[in-house]
Amino acid sequence: MNTSVITQLLGEFFGTAILVLLGDGVVAGVNLKKSKSNGAGWLTVTLGWGLAVTFGVYMVSWMSPGHLNPAVTLAMAIAGKFDWALVLPYAIAQILGAIVGAVLVWLTYFPHWAETDDKDAILGSFSTEPAIRSYWANFFSELVGTFILAYGLLALSKNSFAGGLNPIAAGLLIAVIGISLGGPTGYAINPARDLGPRIAHQFLPIANKGGSDWAYSWVPVFGPLAGGIVAALLFNVVSIMS
Amino acid sequence: MNTSVITQLLGEFFGTAILVLLGDGVVAGVNLKKSKSNGAGWLTVTLGWGLAVTFGVYMVSWMSPGHLNPAVTLAMAIAGKFDWALVLPYAIAQILGAIVGAVLVWLTYFPHWAETDDKDAILGSFSTEPAIRSYWANFFSELVGTFILAYGLLALSKNSFAGGLNPIAAGLLIAVIGISLGGPTGYAINPARDLGPRIAHQFLPIANKGGSDWAYSWVPVFGPLAGGIVAALLFNVVSIMS
Amino acid sequence: MNTSVITQLLGEFFGTAILVLLGDGVVAGVNLKKSKSNGAGWLTVTLGWGLAVTFGVYMVSWMSPGHLNPAVTLAMAIAGKFDWALVLPYAIAQILGAIVGAVLVWLTYFPHWAETDDKDAILGSFSTEPAIRSYWANFFSELVGTFILAYGLLALSKNSFAGGLNPIAAGLLIAVIGISLGGPTGYAINPARDLGPRIAHQFLPIANKGGSDWAYSWVPVFGPLAGGIVAALLFNVVSIMS
Amino acid sequence: MNTSVITQLLGEFFGTAILVLLGDGVVAGVNLKKSKSNGAGWLTVTLGWGLAVTFGVYMVSWMSPGHLNPAVTLAMAIAGKFDWALVLPYAIAQILGAIVGAVLVWLTYFPHWAETDDKDAILGSFSTEPAIRSYWANFFSELVGTFILAYGLLALSKNSFAGGLNPIAAGLLIAVIGISLGGPTGYAINPARDLGPRIAHQFLPIANKGGSDWAYSWVPVFGPLAGGIVAALLFNVVSIMS
Repeated sequence: MNTSVITQLLGEFFGTAILVLLGDGVVAGVNLKKSKSNGAGWLTVTLGWGLAVTFGVYMVSWMSPGHLNPAVTLAMAIAGKFDWALVLPYAIAQILGAIVGAVLVWLTYFPHWAETDDKDAILGSFSTEPAIRSYWANFFSELVGTFILAYGLLALSKNSFAGGLNPIAAGLLIAVIGISLGGPTGYAINPARDLGPRIAHQFLPIANKGGSDWAYSWVPVFGPLAGGIVAALLFNVVSIMS
Repeated sequence: MNTSVITQLLGEFFGTAILVLLGDGVVAGVNLKKSKSNGAGWLTVTLGWGLAVTFGVYMVSWMSPGHLNPAVTLAMAIAGKFDWALVLPYAIAQILGAIVGAVLVWLTYFPHWAETDDKDAILGSFSTEPAIRSYWANFFSELVGTFILAYGLLALSKNSFAGGLNPIAAGLLIAVIGISLGGPTGYAINPARDLGPRIAHQFLPIANKGGSDWAYSWVPVFGPLAGGIVAALLFNVVSIMS
Repeated sequence: MNTSVITQLLGEFFGTAILVLLGDGVVAGVNLKKSKSNGAGWLTVTLGWGLAVTFGVYMVSWMSPGHLNPAVTLAMAIAGKFDWALVLPYAIAQILGAIVGAVLVWLTYFPHWAETDDKDAILGSFSTEPAIRSYWANFFSELVGTFILAYGLLALSKNSFAGGLNPIAAGLLIAVIGISLGGPTGYAINPARDLGPRIAHQFLPIANKGGSDWAYSWVPVFGPLAGGIVAALLFNVVSIMS
Repeated sequence: MNTSVITQLLGEFFGTAILVLLGDGVVAGVNLKKSKSNGAGWLTVTLGWGLAVTFGVYMVSWMSPGHLNPAVTLAMAIAGKFDWALVLPYAIAQILGAIVGAVLVWLTYFPHWAETDDKDAILGSFSTEPAIRSYWANFFSELVGTFILAYGLLALSKNSFAGGLNPIAAGLLIAVIGISLGGPTGYAINPARDLGPRIAHQFLPIANKGGSDWAYSWVPVFGPLAGGIVAALLFNVVSIMS
């Protein structure tokens, strides 16, 4: 790997760590007992995740394209906008960054875990859990949400934002996916964002934690990947037609 | 029809499907039992619809003007900014797109319909219902809301946004119409957004659904059209004067 | 008056009508019984008023400067950015527009007044009322809020927004004044926005209405004017120094 | 000191006063009894603080860089973007401005202090208090939040926003820090914003006030400074590498 690739991978690593710190941070704040943001509600959560993406991207914008999401990286490769050889290295950097972000959430909210006895609230501060467990319905929800994400990012690349506003538009896109499509699964829409924190939850000595729900873990990995694939293929067809 | 027109109609079809998926999606999330966004409140709903328009437009911005609304298409024709011959084809594409969007909402929230026994909550996840049934008052509310929408879009066309920010301004316009004028009718302000999902509600095998309230269905079709007409006529008068 | 002045006055009239329709509209929606936005909360109200200003300005941006507020007009004159001879005509046009906007709110929410028996909720959908009645403290709150508004608009005129984003920045400024300084008085910060709807409330046959509280009416007129004067004088001093 | 430095210091003084007036203002409105925004919730508070920074910066943008925060000033010096000789004068101007802003909050909400008997609600309208008192955990939370702030501002300086949008991006950054990382400590992330109002709380004759909690006061001073230092050092390392 040359210097440029290492810089890119560091960017994806660091940006995904920021993304998960700010994204899982809002869930921890809303879920954990005695937090000042306890019970702040769905709009707070979804705006938090939207801005988490915005600033995850801004903070590495001169290092990497700021995918911060293996499903986005895969979609960009299928759409011919990204080098296939870097897909797997990017995904690994993103997952490692997500683990680090989850560790930082654990430390930032350190005194609050011991005050919270709801094991779902604790796991939910790391990884997603479905509202109603129904694997194929949950898979479809994740596919639809990630389809909107990947197709939306490909569409934004056709617009010409002046002055580097793209990360703000991407944050609004994440926000509306959460607001509108997040109800059934909590919208992982990103394999790294879900798998990395689940690994952290498994291994960290978090007070009051329960199981890491590995039975569900494939849904927020493969649902998003499927959504990214469908989006990129449709975008390719549309691009030929129009 | 030449290739360009087909591309435009596909754009309106696809954009309106995205609009309804994200717009009806937020209502479903707020209305349906066990959804993680259940009870998230009016601001969540109105910001969700605003961003639904923003990204419905961005996702087709290189294919069509992104009206996604027959009342807007009609207003643009009256204002001399759109070809009259395409008004009806656009409206049909928009309604078909809205039907597809509603089907996607049904599938995305699939396990939640069976958990929800409130028939109004289910119909409200597809089409609008008035807060107090009073057809002419409801008609007037829809007219005023759509007047603001159509006049606002015509006014925005007089501004020069750098970098393709127009869909974000349009989303803010939709948001404030919902926030400020949505209380009496739930602000259809778009015949396709209301009629398409009502057709889907009629024919889809949705668990726990009740009637599709066809007695009210003319209000959110003709109220918005009337609002678009008044806005365009006033805009024409103002444009001559100023 | 020449044509240009008439166009400007029409712009101020129409823009203030839109401002009050959207601004008082959100209060009516939150206050009135059976409205779908009933009880939607302070953030909804303050974002609604912010966007009401944004789109009140956009809708007349090619006709007038979009002050929509006698305190702003006065401040601009003191700061040497506006013709003194037009201050009074502007103020009259703004107040007349505010009356029309209030009439439109009454009509848009027509069936809801009869369902609402709280006279304060009804008056509050037109004009402001203090949280704790204390005229000079209320006057000072209005002065501070309008100082922020007028100084903020003068400061924004020193920035160079690309692409006509000024009305969005002005809307954010209105939003933060409401969020942060609106608690004591409901932040009229605009003599026309308060006086015009109070006149409408006095004369319209609104179901269930009580008195129009004329004893308080001078506070939201002279408090904002005082805030505009202080802001413009300080801005003049700062401009000489820096 | 030459004229330019005096102008800069006046800018930092005035901008920090505006920041604290609008930022502490939203907390006062949410905390104090009978305020119209009483109980408006965490999202209202965090958006209020975000916009407080946005307009604090805009209002002095032609006078000073608008740090309004000694931790930011220190980080900029470490990153080689600011003159070390001005770090202490800036910090003093910022703290003095914060005191003035806190006095204005006291006056703006004057009748409400006597109605509020919760001493924590009153102190919290001036300075931060931890959700769970644990000095080193609280210190770490403040460090992480301010790391995001300082690194984020340094990263934004690498983007090229058209038209002076930087203060809006900075406001969004403040908002997400509050939304996502504010739960444990109420996110001072600014020594002046916390120390200045604590001094005002100590000396002002506020009705119903209790102690000013000086035992905690070092955390929101040194935690933010540490976060700024870590951010600037990491930014320097990353800048060499990429």
